[in-house]
Amino acid sequence: MKELLNEVLAEIKPSEEEKKIEIALGKRVMEKLRKIIPKDIGLELVGSIAKDTNLKDDRDVDIFLLFPKKYPKENLEKLGLKFAKKAVEPHKWEIGYAEHPYLRAKIDNCDIDIVPSFKITSIHEKASSVDRSPLHTRYVLGKLDEKQHDEIRLLKQFLKRFDIYGAELKIEGFSGYLCELLIIHYGSFEKLLKNAAKWSEPVIDIEKHYINKKKIREKFRSPLIVLDPVDMDRNVAAATSQESLSKFILTARAFLKKPSREFFFAKKPKVFREELIREIRRRGTKLVCLTFPKPKVVEDILWPQLKKAARNIAKHIELNEFKLFDYGLWTDGRSKCAMLFEFEVHSLPKVKKILGPSISYEEGVTQFIKKHKNSTGPWIENDRLVTIKNRKFSNAIDLLLDIIKNAESYAIPSHISSKLKNYKLLIGEEIVREELYDFMHSYLKKREEFLNSLV
Amino acid sequence: MKELLNEVLAEIKPSEEEKKIEIALGKRVMEKLRKIIPKDIGLELVGSIAKDTNLKDDRDVDIFLLFPKKYPKENLEKLGLKFAKKAVEPHKWEIGYAEHPYLRAKIDNCDIDIVPSFKITSIHEKASSVDRSPLHTRYVLGKLDEKQHDEIRLLKQFLKRFDIYGAELKIEGFSGYLCELLIIHYGSFEKLLKNAAKWSEPVIDIEKHYINKKKIREKFRSPLIVLDPVDMDRNVAAATSQESLSKFILTARAFLKKPSREFFFAKKPKVFREELIREIRRRGTKLVCLTFPKPKVVEDILWPQLKKAARNIAKHIELNEFKLFDYGLWTDGRSKCAMLFEFEVHSLPKVKKILGPSISYEEGVTQFIKKHKNSTGPWIENDRLVTIKNRKFSNAIDLLLDIIKNAESYAIPSHISSKLKNYKLLIGEEIVREELYDFMHSYLKKREEFLNSLV
Repeated sequence: MKELLNEVLAEIKPSEEEKKIEIALGKRVMEKLRKIIPKDIGLELVGSIAKDTNLKDDRDVDIFLLFPKKYPKENLEKLGLKFAKKAVEPHKWEIGYAEHPYLRAKIDNCDIDIVPSFKITSIHEKASSVDRSPLHTRYVLGKLDEKQHDEIRLLKQFLKRFDIYGAELKIEGFSGYLCELLIIHYGSFEKLLKNAAKWSEPVIDIEKHYINKKKIREKFRSPLIVLDPVDMDRNVAAATSQESLSKFILTARAFLKKPSREFFFAKKPKVFREELIREIRRRGTKLVCLTFPKPKVVEDILWPQLKKAARNIAKHIELNEFKLFDYGLWTDGRSKCAMLFEFEVHSLPKVKKILGPSISYEEGVTQFIKKHKNSTGPWIENDRLVTIKNRKFSNAIDLLLDIIKNAESYAIPSHISSKLKNYKLLIGEEIVREELYDFMHSYLKKREEFLNSLV
Repeated sequence: MKELLNEVLAEIKPSEEEKKIEIALGKRVMEKLRKIIPKDIGLELVGSIAKDTNLKDDRDVDIFLLFPKKYPKENLEKLGLKFAKKAVEPHKWEIGYAEHPYLRAKIDNCDIDIVPSFKITSIHEKASSVDRSPLHTRYVLGKLDEKQHDEIRLLKQFLKRFDIYGAELKIEGFSGYLCELLIIHYGSFEKLLKNAAKWSEPVIDIEKHYINKKKIREKFRSPLIVLDPVDMDRNVAAATSQESLSKFILTARAFLKKPSREFFFAKKPKVFREELIREIRRRGTKLVCLTFPKPKVVEDILWPQLKKAARNIAKHIELNEFKLFDYGLWTDGRSKCAMLFEFEVHSLPKVKKILGPSISYEEGVTQFIKKHKNSTGPWIENDRLVTIKNRKFSNAIDLLLDIIKNAESYAIPSHISSKLKNYKLLIGEEIVREELYDFMHSYLKKREEFLNSLV
């Protein structure tokens, strides 16, 4: 095990050279900022570089602008972004949104995030989690021994391999700070896995903020609860979905049973057109794919809207009594999005039965007869009137077209509904086109190879 | 109203001539029997002729053989039928089954039932309801005034019109004796309807056997409860289904609102092939009809078996996740039967999702992976393992064919399963063939015209 982990570490740890270059880049940007910003605004290098827990080729530099509390929030945002733009020009940048907006630029192949935030001096001050970032950096640095920086790197790589690294809405996995806290709490990567393999409704309270763990569960109601050592009212794992947690627990068990390199490095699967077609034919489901232009928003806005849109469409599919087998979402991150719906039942009769009132409810009976009489009904079944009515949609594709046309009235989020107008509809094997190969493969072949290690 | 009822009565009451002929026929058979049977066995004319409550053209003569209790049950059945056969020969006869077997013969266009039963002398003696028949006859004759015989005839005709006259399993309606008791209790046809229009969980206890009506409901649990005046442990309306009761309540309301001849005499609908085809197309459902030879058994055996067969098939249709819109049963009473299944969903993908154990159940997880791993699964959804499995049946017709082939293992009753081997399968518009016109019409056009009188 030790050998394996060392081997992995050699591949994922940034070289001293790489670290130096990134820190130098961060310092350069900070110097530029220093010249622009007023004296009362602080500057700090935070994030995984500052904590020395970053992975090779991560190339993420996080710089915080620390505004004193006297600044109004609007000013912080406006001024902060203005300073940031000046500091990175003439490089390209875009605006991202966390609790405050921030600026992201690409310089020398590195992602530079410049984040305006409020400077907080005491742990007891009210503040957003963004504002607490410098406190997190300090807490982590104060707790880690030399070896544990690398344990965190192993954990991050392990999670990355299984697509559960990151708190963003696309992933709903484990944030960098969460990884750090887990290693601080359990001591090492291996000890964490041994514990996680047995997790059941885990609650982790490193600084023992609470006496009663049950109270914590009642308060937070997330699958995984890891209290923020610098803020007892915050669950650092709030973004971690049940699915990501389940995956982590199972991968932990599987790795401990049969440790191997494959738990850190995925072989990119070769996708064959014929294999996708074969799987579609094997299933015999109806696959319908809506592709549309990607809205020009950052991923943390795009993904929740994509998810909400798909959830709403799924709801209306069920309300109209079709049956969904599954659905999938995709974006190439540049210009295209897709929502894939796979139907178990996509076609229904033109009519449906409607159950009327009990015959003992006299007024209901007359109203029902007035409203619903037609050439075939009503009639009596048990103690109820029953009749036949035309369905609004007897084909799921008609419903989808109606949703596209009237997206707002189906509560499809704005960025999606506006782009949906330029939809393309692909059905069945038409969906298997080159740009969608990877998506189709990950959708159709969800098999988790690592589960084999469990048997 | 009075005029209308008198008009109806004139059409449905047997003439004095007719009555005489039937009574004479009964007496003739009884005389023949008298010569055959030992002296200790009694003879009695019972049924609606004896009670003078029969309808014109009913032509039902019921004769009871009254065996003293010292005869063992087997002897009663064996001897009774032997005597009956001798008495009706050389006319044709068949054996029917109530609580005891009985003989039915056709003589001079009349149905003669000869029923062996035990003679009971006191109301408090334990006996079957067949054995109590003579007591019923005496009770009814003792209670009815002259006018009420005709009120009973009106009620019977009214019920007949709506296919709810008779306690047999095909109908599950109101028996003759039940009609008589209802008129005895309420006094007249019109008064009965006025009360029935407001029935809600009706309990009728003419002889006030019980103090507490709630207790009666707890004891009998049928939609309609009418206690037998000669047996407090028997509900005369036990065979009446909720549907028949509902229909009676609604027809009562409708008739009182707009009395007319149509509530006694149905116009036989003219069935047009085109209309049936149009309705099938309008619905867009999948209709599948199984026809097969009628088993050579009486209707009171055939119908419960038909109903049980259809219920079991419906259950397996749902177990295989198809969706039934409705189903219907039919026999021409001579040589053919049919079961019609109308599908909302008759075709499903070749595969289905199966939900595995929660990941916290370690042993279940390994078992599930061993058992269900294939090229697409398992994978993780929330806290469960999930995979894809081939369905046993992806088409409802394949399921039906399997049921026909292995009828016993699907618990199809014996008389049906043996005849099902000679099935014919008709699909969609193929079903619209002349012999099935009436069946298809009553199945597709269930609309109850009388309901219009309620609005």
